[in-house]
Amino acid sequence: MRTIFTAELTQLGDDLVTMSQLVETAVSTAGTALLTADLTLAESVIAADAKIDALEGQIDERCIQILVKQQPVARDLRIVVTALRMTASLERMGDLAQHIAEVARLRYPATAIPEPMVPTFAEMTDAAARVARRITTLLETHDLELAAEIEADDDTLDNLHAKTFTSVLEPQWYGAPQEVIDVTLVGRYLERFGDHAVSIARRIVYLVTGGATDARRRI
Amino acid sequence: MRTIFTAELTQLGDDLVTMSQLVETAVSTAGTALLTADLTLAESVIAADAKIDALEGQIDERCIQILVKQQPVARDLRIVVTALRMTASLERMGDLAQHIAEVARLRYPATAIPEPMVPTFAEMTDAAARVARRITTLLETHDLELAAEIEADDDTLDNLHAKTFTSVLEPQWYGAPQEVIDVTLVGRYLERFGDHAVSIARRIVYLVTGGATDARRRI
Repeated sequence: MRTIFTAELTQLGDDLVTMSQLVETAVSTAGTALLTADLTLAESVIAADAKIDALEGQIDERCIQILVKQQPVARDLRIVVTALRMTASLERMGDLAQHIAEVARLRYPATAIPEPMVPTFAEMTDAAARVARRITTLLETHDLELAAEIEADDDTLDNLHAKTFTSVLEPQWYGAPQEVIDVTLVGRYLERFGDHAVSIARRIVYLVTGGATDARRRI
Repeated sequence: MRTIFTAELTQLGDDLVTMSQLVETAVSTAGTALLTADLTLAESVIAADAKIDALEGQIDERCIQILVKQQPVARDLRIVVTALRMTASLERMGDLAQHIAEVARLRYPATAIPEPMVPTFAEMTDAAARVARRITTLLETHDLELAAEIEADDDTLDNLHAKTFTSVLEPQWYGAPQEVIDVTLVGRYLERFGDHAVSIARRIVYLVTGGATDARRRI
């Protein structure tokens, strides 16, 4: 019984890694689509989101089945409940990547991000791709150093996000309202992407260390 | 054993109702604070969010304890897992109400929403308050008619949200970039508020009917 259960938990971990890899591809591709006005890439991200959503459903159903059949307790139970929480975050990160791709598609053949703000958004999409890569590795290795790096990436995202606002509000800003809307929304999507990554990282830290780094974030 | 368990599930339901009531107060107060530039109201929403967050932690911990002690199966298990999902949505709805209040506070003593767009945002904040009220009642009564009304409220929110963009993009739009940012963000917060309400409503429908109205939304 215990062996089967361990195998099921391992499978659950593998599925989460697969889901995280899909999110990683989605956000880095969406970033490129956004900054290079690449319609094909944008559409590939939009199409691939269904796979992330389907995986969420499958993992959730597997979690429920584990709860029913194995009736796990203590740490095992927390692993399963945490997995249920993490799929929700990963699914949302996939949606955010999709939203970014949608903005790119909507503005095609133009670039959604006005020229002077491209460097800031390049830094932001890089940070988002990095954060997604680190989530995958954190899920694979449980190396808690990565959690600290994810928090740092998220701080970077927050600072860059704040910078997008100050740029738009500078007197020399010349953009149209549509550009302000796009900058505001894409900035917000990237900032939220980082928040979800931090939430996943904190859940893993809690599972591994058994202690909350932040009382609000416990499973 | 069964009686204690029933009592625990009842308590869980009551706690969710309490959490939903706090969200209801938060969003309707935030709406008023936004439209009337009322600093005191805005600050009360911001201060009250900690209560919603704390309740999320308490309910989640209670769910884990029920899973550990009662090892529920079948429908009981789905009730507990669904509760865990719903607290996450309610907590997020509280955050969104708080964000709206923060925008109101940031612009005080001015009103964040430019005069010509006040009617649209008044409709949006009304719809958001209505949707929150209906979630509370749905949690209390499991009257599935409410779920359909919540979906309709969400459609209203989506349409009004789209309207905010067309208003900002009209040639006679005269607002400053800051106003475009505020309109874009507050519109987005209200639109997301509706999405979370729909997600809760669909989970309750699924629990009550045992069938998914939307395969992606099953628990």
